[in-house]
Amino acid sequence: MNGAESLVRTLVASGVEVCFSNPGTSEMHFVAALDKVDGMRAVLGLFEGAVTGMADGYGRMADKPAATLLHLGPGLANGLANLHNARRASTPIVNIVGDHATYHAQYDAPLASDLAGFARPVSGWLHSSPNAKTVAADGARAVQAARSAPGRIATLILPADTAWLEADGPAPALPVADPAPVAPEMIDLVAKALKSGRKAAIIIRGPGLRKRGLHAAGRIAAKTGARIMCDTFAPRLERGAGIVAVERIPYFAEQIVDTFKDVEELILVGAQPPVSFFAYPGKASYCAPESAKIHYLAQAYEDGVAALEALADALGAPKDPIHVAQGTKGDLPKGRLDQFSAGQIVAHFLPEGAIISDEAATSGLGSMIATAAAPFHDYLSLTGGAIGQGLPLATGAAVAKPDRKVVCLHGDGGAMYTLQALWTQAREKLDVVNVIFANHSYAILNIELARVGAGNPGPKALSMLDLHNPELNWVHLAQGMGVEATRVETAEEFADAYSSAIKAKGPRLIEVML
Amino acid sequence: MNGAESLVRTLVASGVEVCFSNPGTSEMHFVAALDKVDGMRAVLGLFEGAVTGMADGYGRMADKPAATLLHLGPGLANGLANLHNARRASTPIVNIVGDHATYHAQYDAPLASDLAGFARPVSGWLHSSPNAKTVAADGARAVQAARSAPGRIATLILPADTAWLEADGPAPALPVADPAPVAPEMIDLVAKALKSGRKAAIIIRGPGLRKRGLHAAGRIAAKTGARIMCDTFAPRLERGAGIVAVERIPYFAEQIVDTFKDVEELILVGAQPPVSFFAYPGKASYCAPESAKIHYLAQAYEDGVAALEALADALGAPKDPIHVAQGTKGDLPKGRLDQFSAGQIVAHFLPEGAIISDEAATSGLGSMIATAAAPFHDYLSLTGGAIGQGLPLATGAAVAKPDRKVVCLHGDGGAMYTLQALWTQAREKLDVVNVIFANHSYAILNIELARVGAGNPGPKALSMLDLHNPELNWVHLAQGMGVEATRVETAEEFADAYSSAIKAKGPRLIEVML
Repeated sequence: MNGAESLVRTLVASGVEVCFSNPGTSEMHFVAALDKVDGMRAVLGLFEGAVTGMADGYGRMADKPAATLLHLGPGLANGLANLHNARRASTPIVNIVGDHATYHAQYDAPLASDLAGFARPVSGWLHSSPNAKTVAADGARAVQAARSAPGRIATLILPADTAWLEADGPAPALPVADPAPVAPEMIDLVAKALKSGRKAAIIIRGPGLRKRGLHAAGRIAAKTGARIMCDTFAPRLERGAGIVAVERIPYFAEQIVDTFKDVEELILVGAQPPVSFFAYPGKASYCAPESAKIHYLAQAYEDGVAALEALADALGAPKDPIHVAQGTKGDLPKGRLDQFSAGQIVAHFLPEGAIISDEAATSGLGSMIATAAAPFHDYLSLTGGAIGQGLPLATGAAVAKPDRKVVCLHGDGGAMYTLQALWTQAREKLDVVNVIFANHSYAILNIELARVGAGNPGPKALSMLDLHNPELNWVHLAQGMGVEATRVETAEEFADAYSSAIKAKGPRLIEVML
Repeated sequence: MNGAESLVRTLVASGVEVCFSNPGTSEMHFVAALDKVDGMRAVLGLFEGAVTGMADGYGRMADKPAATLLHLGPGLANGLANLHNARRASTPIVNIVGDHATYHAQYDAPLASDLAGFARPVSGWLHSSPNAKTVAADGARAVQAARSAPGRIATLILPADTAWLEADGPAPALPVADPAPVAPEMIDLVAKALKSGRKAAIIIRGPGLRKRGLHAAGRIAAKTGARIMCDTFAPRLERGAGIVAVERIPYFAEQIVDTFKDVEELILVGAQPPVSFFAYPGKASYCAPESAKIHYLAQAYEDGVAALEALADALGAPKDPIHVAQGTKGDLPKGRLDQFSAGQIVAHFLPEGAIISDEAATSGLGSMIATAAAPFHDYLSLTGGAIGQGLPLATGAAVAKPDRKVVCLHGDGGAMYTLQALWTQAREKLDVVNVIFANHSYAILNIELARVGAGNPGPKALSMLDLHNPELNWVHLAQGMGVEATRVETAEEFADAYSSAIKAKGPRLIEVML
């Protein structure tokens, strides 16, 4: 068996079931090996930004890594922005990048580049296999690294000759350690802070934002009055009926400062103190009060869920949490379609167990508010700020969870970045309802232009933020990639189109004209 | 005046007239400065891969750099693949990337990344401005670096506060040295080799592939019988009626070996010895005969054109070159539409002075052959092998040369990578005829899969190369971005659509069903 087959067998043995791919010549042996090995699904994306975003969505929802298969430095480069988002989400990904054969590198052929240089900024683990005999073991190590808490991108560079030369066979799966437990002294320290009577807030990130961790947090809140919070862009948040609701940190610096102004004890569970997304002249970058005492209850690589439970017990918190969201189906709005009426409609028809991929940017608040009382669902956010995440993320989430409905809420500007993901949705018949909020603008930048104090913008500046000329037509774009699509202009039209799409199977796109 | 305005004024003073942009919050002061300064055209792209590819096309045709304006690490990352192509083309580009404010970097906000790490592999010059006072001088240095022979990507990282804080004013343009002259001893050495009677080939890359350099090469060929050659993927090649025709090095390793098998003296003008694009088991990587003597007549940063002229004179070559292409309008084919009949049609209606952006891959040979006898034109190739260059390159070339018709020949697989460029063509009303060869396949990979000896491919492997399911519809995709489009299935339909598009003004897209 050649190196490629030994690697694919190793990945399958290590629990990797899906490979999101856009291969080239140097990856052909890996591609050929896919047919020799049972248990690896290959999902093609027509651009690497779609491929890596799909791997991110899969990893967030499957709690284990998919593999990617990318072609040399430029293929990796095309996937970097969504790998940046995945890195910020601590998503496990086994990021496999084919390279020129080891002996070919010296010739500096046109596609040669500093591949490891491209990979380093996004990789938590990075290795180039030196020969076919080590590829299998390197693959097992990559999976292990990717899965180790809190999850990371493990980039394995696969020179073409290590794929085609004879290997020794697959390597066994390596054990993955449980997240490190938090020391009891740390629990006691934080319990003491919470008993002090000083105003406290707990920011949670990572697995603590699912039902079990939130349940514990809600018990702590019941006992102490501490606020339970999450980042503006949490990788994955369980919410809706039956789940303890968390307070989401707002986006703009001055709002964050205002949110935290009374906080005296800031407890961090896999999170960092709040900072502003961008710097603005005269505004804070660090947004917690300087006087607030910081407690890192759990680092990102530690077991934050168990720490929250231990903390609740140490506090003598009641068995039942507060802030449990109630499922209340809101009214259906009529007439004018804006992000708030659209959000009410999104929430009204949201099925139990839905997965929301949110890159709606300035059009997202309405859905975020309205879905708080919707049935149980997962909310996936744009973790690294690299736009073009939403469509691929939804696509990968649908591969991971074929029995759950995926709803992708996306601004039109960001959606243009990786629209190729729609083709994969059609090809794989994935159950995704894509809602494109078409404001024909980089709307956030119109706000930011004023906020950064750049003065009274002239026509050239404004034209850089304006997508009206020509107007994008998302119905045509989606149809060009085989996805059924419709454009809506009123609340009634959206309710019709959206409820039908939710009932149907397979991908749909709805262009919401704002 | 703030740093951003000082930079824009400096760029304009240094001869930079166009800024290809996809800005974000950290670039808003630069964007605002565009209205305060005359002489800088801002061209928006809806994805950074389109932006950098446009800057490449502009630089290749304008012989001077455009600026880019990219947003932080992920914005740069999205543009890297086409910067890789531009690096391989030695295209001058002033690659401006906004960064977080200097004091904001410490907070590791979501969009923070190792920006310089992303930039290094593609940059021939890289600098991050430390404060507003130095931005103007840094900008002048970036232009100087970009323009220095043979041309390079000069990446200037612009922290947001260096853009918004008070600056001292613009910096003057810095002088750009002429390419270094080749030493007379080198000319004599090569002249001696050519007089030896041994079989010689001259590979030319860079400015030597334009009329003047080719004229000299044609004189040398007339005197010595030396073959005049260019790389498979030359950045820019002048060809057609009245121009000395060059022999293009073929793509596959064994073809290259065969092409060079008799060569005893290999003369390189801004070029490297021929190597195979990829490595293949049992095939050569280095494709010149080991026995061939290598002469670097001119390095890429030296004046290869003057060296060719001096060599012709030293050889006592005749005044008139051989291999001058004759303009002969071929017949119009009928019936079956394939790359060869399509190529004949492309050539038949090609107007004098056209610019061809070629990323037709396996569908490109027909046009390459047929246009050899077409009127004078420029041929721009995929220099770095990073697919998704063709549409942006055509777009940027059209910005550089508004009076010349641009014809973009593109495979459907590669075109999907940066289809966003079509929107910019529509917005700027650029005179580009986009011909998409729709074979619904990564056709090259079907060839490569066999060539690399990956065995008999199974259904999964084949599905990774197949774009039929679902079938892309380029007419819909183009219409979604405001570009008039049509699909053709016969030679007659293509001749009609293409000749009309050539006559019309503004962008058109023709989907050629293969």
